[in-house]
This record gives sequence, C-alpha cells and structure tokens, in this order.
Amino acid sequence: MIIALAGGVGGARLAHGLARALPPGELTVVVNTGDDFTHLGLNICPDPDTVMYTLAGLADPERGWGVEGETFNAMEALGQLGGENWFSLGDRDLATHIERTRRLALGEPLSTIMADFCARLGIQHGVIPMSDDPIRTIVHTAEGDLPFQDYFVRHRCAPAIARLSFKGTGDASPSPALNDLMQSDRVRGVVICPSNPFLSIDPILAVPGVRPWLQGRKFPCIAISPLIGGKAVKGPAAKIMAELQLDAKPRAIALHYQGLIDGLVIDQEDSADAFGQCLVTSTLMRNMADRERLAREALSYLESLRIV
Amino acid sequence: MIIALAGGVGGARLAHGLARALPPGELTVVVNTGDDFTHLGLNICPDPDTVMYTLAGLADPERGWGVEGETFNAMEALGQLGGENWFSLGDRDLATHIERTRRLALGEPLSTIMADFCARLGIQHGVIPMSDDPIRTIVHTAEGDLPFQDYFVRHRCAPAIARLSFKGTGDASPSPALNDLMQSDRVRGVVICPSNPFLSIDPILAVPGVRPWLQGRKFPCIAISPLIGGKAVKGPAAKIMAELQLDAKPRAIALHYQGLIDGLVIDQEDSADAFGQCLVTSTLMRNMADRERLAREALSYLESLRIV
Repeated sequence: MIIALAGGVGGARLAHGLARALPPGELTVVVNTGDDFTHLGLNICPDPDTVMYTLAGLADPERGWGVEGETFNAMEALGQLGGENWFSLGDRDLATHIERTRRLALGEPLSTIMADFCARLGIQHGVIPMSDDPIRTIVHTAEGDLPFQDYFVRHRCAPAIARLSFKGTGDASPSPALNDLMQSDRVRGVVICPSNPFLSIDPILAVPGVRPWLQGRKFPCIAISPLIGGKAVKGPAAKIMAELQLDAKPRAIALHYQGLIDGLVIDQEDSADAFGQCLVTSTLMRNMADRERLAREALSYLESLRIV
Repeated sequence: MIIALAGGVGGARLAHGLARALPPGELTVVVNTGDDFTHLGLNICPDPDTVMYTLAGLADPERGWGVEGETFNAMEALGQLGGENWFSLGDRDLATHIERTRRLALGEPLSTIMADFCARLGIQHGVIPMSDDPIRTIVHTAEGDLPFQDYFVRHRCAPAIARLSFKGTGDASPSPALNDLMQSDRVRGVVICPSNPFLSIDPILAVPGVRPWLQGRKFPCIAISPLIGGKAVKGPAAKIMAELQLDAKPRAIALHYQGLIDGLVIDQEDSADAFGQCLVTSTLMRNMADRERLAREALSYLESLRIV
C-alpha cells in the first residue's frame, strides 16, 4: 500500500497519476480536511471534493476546483434572494454538499460518506479524510485570525500570514482507515503530494499520531515540491513562504519536512538548487500524461529509497 | 385590503391576476403550508414558492411548479451519489430552499423570510404563510397514513383518500400578518382561490381562529370553483371528491365552504349546475390576460355581495 498525503489541486492531480499507476487496493489518498467549513448551512469539504472529482475524472481541468461543465444557476438565484454567494458552488457540486450534510446530520462519519461517494463515482482507490473529527485551519494575520476560507476565498490570500494553527486537533483522532494503516505493516511508502505544505499538508501532520508515525517510519517517504522556479503553479505557497521569511527554494521545503522525508522531487527549473537527496524532473502537470509520468517517476524514486 | 386564500398552481395563477388588478398594499395572499416538508435536510415549501415564483413572473408556465428555464443538474448529480431524487428540485429553486433552511435554523420565522424573498423578487403585494408553526397535511388512505408529498409526488395521488388531517394545528397560531388582518377592520373581502379545497384550502381553514373569523365575517367572501366540467384543471380534486363520495359539481364545492362563502364563481361549462348565488364565467386561466380578467370579474362579484 502506498499512501499519498494530498490537499488541493496539485495534490489531487498527482493523486490521479498515482491512481493510474497503481492497481486498485494499493493506493490510499489521505486528504486534508482543515479547509472544511460550514457555509449556507452545508458542510463543504473543498480538498476531499477536489480529490474525489479529480480521481473520478469529473474535475474541471482549467479551474482546478469543482466539476467540469458546471452550471451556477443556484448561486445566481441565491444572490437574487440576498444570500451569501462569495463562495461559488456549482449546481452539480451542491448535490455533494447537500447529501453529505444530510448524512452527517444523521450521525454518519465523514469517511464512510466519502467512501460511498467515491465508490458510486467509480473510484477504485481509497480516498479518506485525515480525520472524521472537525479540524479547522486558522490563518493568523496582522488583520486578525481568519478561518481558512475567509482568508483563501473572501480575502484572496491578501493578508500576510504570521502563523497557522489547526483548531480541534486536541480532540481529534485519525480517521479509522488512516488509523488502521498507521498500525499495519502493509505500508510500502508515503508520497507527500505537491500541495501547499503549510495549508494542505501541515493539517494532516497535525492530526494526533501522524507526525510521530512518519518520524518512526520503517518505509520510505518522499515529498514532491510544489514550487517551480520559486513559484507555486497555483495558490499562495511562495507568497506564504516569503511572509514566513523562507526562501521559496527546494531546500526550504526539505527543511519544512525534516525528519519526515527521505527524498524530495524537484522541478528541472530548480536543478541549480538541487541538494543531496533530490530527484530532478519535470513536475508540471498540464495533462493526464504528465500526471501519470510524474507519479511513476515518484514511485520509482520512492522504491529506490526503500530501506533494504 | 382583499385577502386571497391560495394553495398550488390554480391558486397562484388567480393570485397573480389579483396582484395585477389591485394596487400594491391592497392584496394579501395567505398561502397553505400544509404541504411543506423537510427533504434532503432542506425546508421545502411548495405552495408558498409556487405563489412567490408566479407573482414574481418566474414560474414555469407549463409545469406550473418551479422556475422557468430551470436546470436540474444538482438532482442528476444527487442521483449519481445515491441521494433521493424522487422529488425534483431545480437548481435555481434549490437556492430558495437552502437560504430558507439556513435562516429558519437561525430562528427566523417563515413569514419574515418569505416577506424578504418576495420583496427581493419585486413582489409588491403581501404573500404570507398561513402560520409560522409547522402544520403538516396527512393523507389517510387504505394503504396507510401518508405525509402529503409521499401521497402527491411519490405515489402520484394513486391511493384512495379516506380522510385528511392537519397535524400540528393544536399548537399552531396564524402567522403574525394574518393575525393582524383577522383583527383589523381593513378587510374588504376574501377570495378563496381555485385551489384544491381539501388539500390546499382546508389546511388554511384548520389554523386556529381562521374558520371562526370567516364564519363571523363582516365582509363578503367568495370561492372560485376549481372544477371545470366535473374535472380539475390540474391535480386530483375530482378524484378526491369521488373517493369522498362527493359529486364533482359546483354545489359540492359550495357545500364544502358552507357558512364561509357568500357566492361561488363557476365555469361556463358548469352553467347547467348553477344555483342561487353563482357567477358563471370562464375560469380557465391559460395566459396572463385570463388571470387578470378572472381576477377582475371575481373582485366585481365580491364587491356586489358587500353588505351595505
């Protein structure tokens, strides 16, 4: 079993490549739920849904989020009724939130709902939330503490980040499937996807037990740097690194994951900044072939690091 | 002030005609909420929404329910996720339910939410629910007791009705605006719209205080028969009358409203069955002109019955 840790669009794309490269039953994608929030009375899970839609082949290839060919008629009507429409939810996407909210309200855990949704959408690999308990990313800025979506969507990542915290980790446990994997000897390796380390991966590492489990690993773990030439393909990773006084270079990513990874995959644009344990390749995923090629290269690299 | 009691499509259409015939501030439409139900975790109010969409000029002219030009992408996606899609909700319509559910959950009464929605959609007349308290129509059939939408949509009105009851009336009050009108001397007359007497009007009459208020009226009250040539234009009125051993003729409608109305408007197809206090005209509303003409004729008739 290979475990991928994933957040938003970049993570979902590599997870999609891994799903094509690995047979069903040999990949579990553990997804960040720190961005989840309640909006319009609905439970919205942006990262789990992005991974689900991407692996189901339903994701919008341009936007990265939401469903391809989506309509936004409900949002338009909501605006006419004076409702909050700053967070855009497509009509098909709304069905996911409505049905999930209904099932959560009946007491069903997020992970079984996600497993059912994924099965119905034809996904043959495991996609599990990091936790069934609510963990919420809080962005601490000079303008005050902002819930993640307020920072990300409403403020378009403009406020400078001083630090991040993950509310609810004290009372949280890993989701049952993640817990099982953490206690099994079936894990052959872990791939940290090219997701934002601070916003997408750190919440997963903050779930009680996850960081110690990786630190004490008997399997190799690699990360794919989300940076290409000092910039993120999408999202505010480079901006956040500058705000945290970090150099937007591969070494800073490696240092961020210190003690957790055995190697880092970096883009050829950053080859001048390569160091010790690095795989240099093209990490840009423009199409399906890119996703699968990068996934296969990452898996080979992971295999090469196996402790014999 | 003219008060119209209305339920589904026929009621909404006459209410629309009345809204065109009367200046703003001189019409209040009191709408049946006995069909309201919770579905997919959302509060659905079929009759209030039909009246609202119709008066706002948004209603689908063919279907009668829902919004014109509606898409059903959320329902299709919901089906793929294994959700219940037997009750079809359009994408634009969903926004109404989502926003209403959110506001109800915050403790806001249905009538203020409806007033706000109607104002935002440009409706200049009052549209008020019969009550802010939950009243639910129960259809008692040989196959058991069915919640209204189960009977109406899921079973397509097939089970024979033995009787109807309106759950929750014991603890219910008229909505504040209806209560104010019931205590004011501003009411010039009441029009019972050509809605189903059993399913749409009886729930309104079952709200505590409404029937005695009409019985003790100092203003005229008329009903428009929903029958044309022994059939309902839409819906199961004639079928239900047969099941209740009633003749689907104007007199049975008049007897149903005995003590409550001073006159009955019937269609010319039923002229042979006219009796004492009847206005015979064309009651079929195919277009906007029909709605307005029937409304004006009904208002003149109502005026002619005024106790001088």
